[in-house]
Amino acid sequence: MASINANYLKLKAGYLFPEIARRVRTFTEEHPDLAPRIIRCGIGDVTEPLPSAVREAMHAAVDEQGDRSTFKGYGPEQGYEFLRQAIVENQYADLSISADEVFISDGSKCDTGNILDIFGPGNRIAITDPVYPVYVDTNVMVGNTGEADSKGAYEGLLYLPCTAENGFVADLPTEKVDLIYLCFPNNPTGTVATREQLKGWVDYALAHDAIILFDAAYEAFIQDPEIPHSIFEIEGARDCCIEFRSFSKNGGFTGVRCAYVVIPKTVTGSTPDGTRIPLHQLWSRRHSTKFNGASYPVQKGAAAVFSPEGKEQVAALIQHYMGNAALLREACQTAGLQVFGGENAPYVWVSCPDGVSSWEMFDKMLGEAQVVITPGAGFGAAGEGYFRISAFNSRENVEEVCRRLARVFG
Amino acid sequence: MASINANYLKLKAGYLFPEIARRVRTFTEEHPDLAPRIIRCGIGDVTEPLPSAVREAMHAAVDEQGDRSTFKGYGPEQGYEFLRQAIVENQYADLSISADEVFISDGSKCDTGNILDIFGPGNRIAITDPVYPVYVDTNVMVGNTGEADSKGAYEGLLYLPCTAENGFVADLPTEKVDLIYLCFPNNPTGTVATREQLKGWVDYALAHDAIILFDAAYEAFIQDPEIPHSIFEIEGARDCCIEFRSFSKNGGFTGVRCAYVVIPKTVTGSTPDGTRIPLHQLWSRRHSTKFNGASYPVQKGAAAVFSPEGKEQVAALIQHYMGNAALLREACQTAGLQVFGGENAPYVWVSCPDGVSSWEMFDKMLGEAQVVITPGAGFGAAGEGYFRISAFNSRENVEEVCRRLARVFG
Repeated sequence: MASINANYLKLKAGYLFPEIARRVRTFTEEHPDLAPRIIRCGIGDVTEPLPSAVREAMHAAVDEQGDRSTFKGYGPEQGYEFLRQAIVENQYADLSISADEVFISDGSKCDTGNILDIFGPGNRIAITDPVYPVYVDTNVMVGNTGEADSKGAYEGLLYLPCTAENGFVADLPTEKVDLIYLCFPNNPTGTVATREQLKGWVDYALAHDAIILFDAAYEAFIQDPEIPHSIFEIEGARDCCIEFRSFSKNGGFTGVRCAYVVIPKTVTGSTPDGTRIPLHQLWSRRHSTKFNGASYPVQKGAAAVFSPEGKEQVAALIQHYMGNAALLREACQTAGLQVFGGENAPYVWVSCPDGVSSWEMFDKMLGEAQVVITPGAGFGAAGEGYFRISAFNSRENVEEVCRRLARVFG
Repeated sequence: MASINANYLKLKAGYLFPEIARRVRTFTEEHPDLAPRIIRCGIGDVTEPLPSAVREAMHAAVDEQGDRSTFKGYGPEQGYEFLRQAIVENQYADLSISADEVFISDGSKCDTGNILDIFGPGNRIAITDPVYPVYVDTNVMVGNTGEADSKGAYEGLLYLPCTAENGFVADLPTEKVDLIYLCFPNNPTGTVATREQLKGWVDYALAHDAIILFDAAYEAFIQDPEIPHSIFEIEGARDCCIEFRSFSKNGGFTGVRCAYVVIPKTVTGSTPDGTRIPLHQLWSRRHSTKFNGASYPVQKGAAAVFSPEGKEQVAALIQHYMGNAALLREACQTAGLQVFGGENAPYVWVSCPDGVSSWEMFDKMLGEAQVVITPGAGFGAAGEGYFRISAFNSRENVEEVCRRLARVFG
């Protein structure tokens, strides 16, 4: 009899986005007349075309595959040098990151989930709340938690509430933890951490021999020059941090798939007998054994994000989405709602009116405005009473969403 | 202090192919004059161009990404319906597999490694020997084994020797096991299993409530019409088998990356309290939480493998590689070496001359013929005394390898 991984059975209901899809499907079936009016500001998926610099590079790479002299079979599992080098030069200049500390993958969702492969049991894990559900669910799946309580919080995880009171930057834990998930600019709240706040986290990690898993998938949206884009801008981070980045949201790669992890060779964990082992060595081994490299045409496309044309086109995309975010912020404020985020991130985080739960708000926005938002409670207990509006959309749709917000709350 | 996954430290030396690469690099540095003569028949990587039908489909998909009305962001984590449907219609016609039992991924290496995520601890695991190293190493990494012995065999795994005596099809275990890895056509031996032999395995699995993990990555190379291409051709397999397939070796996708897993909804495992859980449900959840779908242009390219032009072009590729295999078989036989496989698979499995170990043979072939082969011992203890020659090459290179074999063993 083959035993299954029974930890999976602890997972609550569906993953957030499938549940949203289910409710939208039900609404569509019940109101076919209103279905064409639906505007999706739920899942954080980009909507605008892939930059032409990227497409041209992908076309050229596909053509290379048509000639045996330029055909590429298995590539390096950790990624092509041309891309690792381009990332270091363009994203980590002056931050002492070397190309072989960058690991190319097919997505940050995979990376942030798979990273648990290299950690052992018994780690005390801190997760901000609200949070990207993948961090929590993958910890459940590997057995790092007990069961969930009635609010969906899992036994064994240390939840760090992010609220309006702390500006959605979690307070440092008052106890010792071993792994800490941080995400800035934050998904879902759209808020950022200052250099001083990040310094506090790095100092905490160094003092407690903890590892910070830093998700910087949205760094390209930072407008404020004082806000760090990388945790490696903070002194000491090379000894305690792993950073996740993606081409999904800057280059529009959600359908094309490319991301990367940066693991400095100086970050170590410990064996049961106290021997220090570089995490770089473990992740490299994992890539060699369980991954065969990201698609070659995709890696070529990703490298084109750093070409002069690519940079210009990505900047225009960011400007477009951040223009949307500004409009959404304003519309929510005009509607009398309290608004956070959306100034250095493509997400606007909004307080529900008094007494309205976040799933009620979801149903109201879908039913009355045919606008799909994401209920804050889907991101954790501390997200209750909030909803997220994504700025990933056309300007036309965003303007229409703003008009509908005015009608619903007018 | 973050604890690491100390199971990784049990892994022996490098993964096989990095070790081969290391020896080739050393040889090249020591004999720069001979370096240009090196012909690689080691790693099983395709060499011929990606079919034009695939390239055209990928170009079209990249163009779609350039227009917001056809732009594709996040796709279904389990794969696009167009590809799942094409696979069922073209690969599983009459085998009662439905499209939602097919899970698209970015590679079989990932799939065969990640599949262990959904299984629990305590399973008795049977692995044929010699074998694709990923099956063994991923079991080590999740803690399903103890330490390796001096021959590289891990405590806790049941190794099933595949030898000339049993035609390289392992005998059924005499004890009860829970998970069984089978690969036909086999990597590395290039041999196949008959319908009766596969029936024996399925019957064993049904009788012992075991799961067969069936790797059919090389099914396209089967020439003998009597040999099953899928384990699902065997009665009862829908209740106990998972099948892995790939576009790597038929369509030439080793650099493009696409594969799939077939999990019938009727295959179940058990919780500690004996509740039966469909593995389909667990794998689907894993895909939703730890994967974001394969690249859209790649999935479009994969679907084109099943277009009329695609089929014709893939057939020509298979014919090319199998022609190479026939030449290599003949050359080895003429050289007085005993040869197996290579008739329904792109690998020829060759006995080393008496008293020569497989790594000695590797060094001899590199040193005297500048041909890179794969030492059998790299695939497990039972592979000692054999080496693998890959037929993935140009005809010109294969003919030259044949001439060099004649010289070295002449």
